[in-house]
Amino acid sequence: MLLRDVGEFGLIHRVRQSNLYSPDWIIESIGDDAAVVQCSPGKRQVISTDALVEGVHFNLAYTPLRSLGWKSLAASLSDLAAMGATPLCSVVSLSLPKTWTVDMADTFYEGYFACSKTFNCPLAGGDTTSSKDSAFINVTVFGEADPQKIFLRKGAQKGDLICVSGSLGRSKAALEILEGHYSKKGFENAMQHFLEPTPRFDLVTNPEITKEITAMIDISDGLISDLIHICEASKVGCEIDLTKIPISEEAARWETGRKRNPKKEALHSGEEYQLLFTAHPQFYVRTEMDVQIIGTITDEKEGKNLRIDQTLEPLVPGGWDHFSSH
Amino acid sequence: MLLRDVGEFGLIHRVRQSNLYSPDWIIESIGDDAAVVQCSPGKRQVISTDALVEGVHFNLAYTPLRSLGWKSLAASLSDLAAMGATPLCSVVSLSLPKTWTVDMADTFYEGYFACSKTFNCPLAGGDTTSSKDSAFINVTVFGEADPQKIFLRKGAQKGDLICVSGSLGRSKAALEILEGHYSKKGFENAMQHFLEPTPRFDLVTNPEITKEITAMIDISDGLISDLIHICEASKVGCEIDLTKIPISEEAARWETGRKRNPKKEALHSGEEYQLLFTAHPQFYVRTEMDVQIIGTITDEKEGKNLRIDQTLEPLVPGGWDHFSSH
Repeated sequence: MLLRDVGEFGLIHRVRQSNLYSPDWIIESIGDDAAVVQCSPGKRQVISTDALVEGVHFNLAYTPLRSLGWKSLAASLSDLAAMGATPLCSVVSLSLPKTWTVDMADTFYEGYFACSKTFNCPLAGGDTTSSKDSAFINVTVFGEADPQKIFLRKGAQKGDLICVSGSLGRSKAALEILEGHYSKKGFENAMQHFLEPTPRFDLVTNPEITKEITAMIDISDGLISDLIHICEASKVGCEIDLTKIPISEEAARWETGRKRNPKKEALHSGEEYQLLFTAHPQFYVRTEMDVQIIGTITDEKEGKNLRIDQTLEPLVPGGWDHFSSH
Repeated sequence: MLLRDVGEFGLIHRVRQSNLYSPDWIIESIGDDAAVVQCSPGKRQVISTDALVEGVHFNLAYTPLRSLGWKSLAASLSDLAAMGATPLCSVVSLSLPKTWTVDMADTFYEGYFACSKTFNCPLAGGDTTSSKDSAFINVTVFGEADPQKIFLRKGAQKGDLICVSGSLGRSKAALEILEGHYSKKGFENAMQHFLEPTPRFDLVTNPEITKEITAMIDISDGLISDLIHICEASKVGCEIDLTKIPISEEAARWETGRKRNPKKEALHSGEEYQLLFTAHPQFYVRTEMDVQIIGTITDEKEGKNLRIDQTLEPLVPGGWDHFSSH
């Protein structure tokens, strides 16, 4: 059954029927000109929007639609986590080629709703239109945070510790495996991490961590590019130590097998959705926090540097620029 | 100069520089993982999102980019007006082909910012990415309203008056003129209305009108399609009178010149962004209100009908279904 068989309103009807998660702060959900929500008194509202374009951000040849639905929401939720915000709701625009089947749309929403329930972020509305050739997805998420506990890219100060959550490198490895049609055997964890990432709300709801954070960003462009964003916004320099970069076992195995230095590769692994933050110098990292200290914030005039053994090299951004000619 | 010459971050920098309108409820604007805004206590928040796809929603062959920027925001703002909400802020995603010039993007934002200032809806954030061939735009608007003064599609009751603001038909005429490469001479007003529409916040800030409204929608699909949305949501029937449909002079001239009945054509003119609402039976329409009464709400079992002279015809939706095969 093609989308043209149920039509735009038929598809919206299906989404309404399968959208079972609607907590009491969603006053009016899908089906009117706009959604109506109730924010909490004393909080500030946090908004982020992300576009995902077929052929640019995702490739349907190797991205299961359920994963695409999950990731569309998860990537935006990671921005809320990076601000220290709790999700309120999302709205999604889907512009789909007429050749999509109803099953394809249903499977996309299945993943979207699974993510929505996991992170308490109900779908409140959206727009459903056709597109000419490729699919276009846009997700806007709304969250809220205590005014004193919103974390920006600016705020890092000389002497602060530079910290990263989890381990890095899996997204780059997974993308190379998928694009190169290599065997996924032994890389199941990297696949899962890349296709259905987990925004790190667990860290930003831990007061032992949040009381120390001075600036924060999520790693979507790659550790170095995102660290440069923090340094530029905070007008500071930095020094990170290559040996301290946390690497996942699968990424280490993948990069070593290709005779590359896993830690160097991990510096440019995008779409990691780990949190990169700076913390007061006295921040004490407990083992169970899943956080590594990788360096310190320095004076702006000392530059942004990577320590490799006894030498310092300037950080070179390797992230994705949408309009550069590659 | 092409977008690839300034890059993604260069374009974002230009937008930040030209985004001069930032009232005090925008705490953090463009440049972080998310925007931070301050909602008003006692209000409810209203959210709407709209995708605009090149080749589906707009044609760059005859749409000036300044108008496209204006209309992208204006169309979403019209949804806020239809809910009785006041704008707070917007976020915009632009996915552009790499062949766009910086001038093209600047001109788009010029129109967007002009609309933003006119309707007090500052740009708070966005996403800027590349696309393969065609441009995708997504605008999410965020507004707020008094809980008692939010107008939904549901709420119309038997005996209520059916009212429409302004006059209809210009968007259909303008689209035909532009697509058919006809002379625009004598149709300047229709062009302006179609390319740079005005959301009708003037009506929803008039308490003499709002105290009478029982249900409301903005006319984006066409009067009949949108009236059917109200009737279905309210579980009522309706009867409208063809002779009472307000027609703009230019639309009347265009349709008459093509030997068509202007009022019948106006029933299916989409993207009008006028307000269609139902009002208590005692609603007294003053001349200066720019509102026409076109019919009454009936029992659901009486159906949805159009009176033409002495006969009643069932309403036939003629709006746009994105996935139907046309």
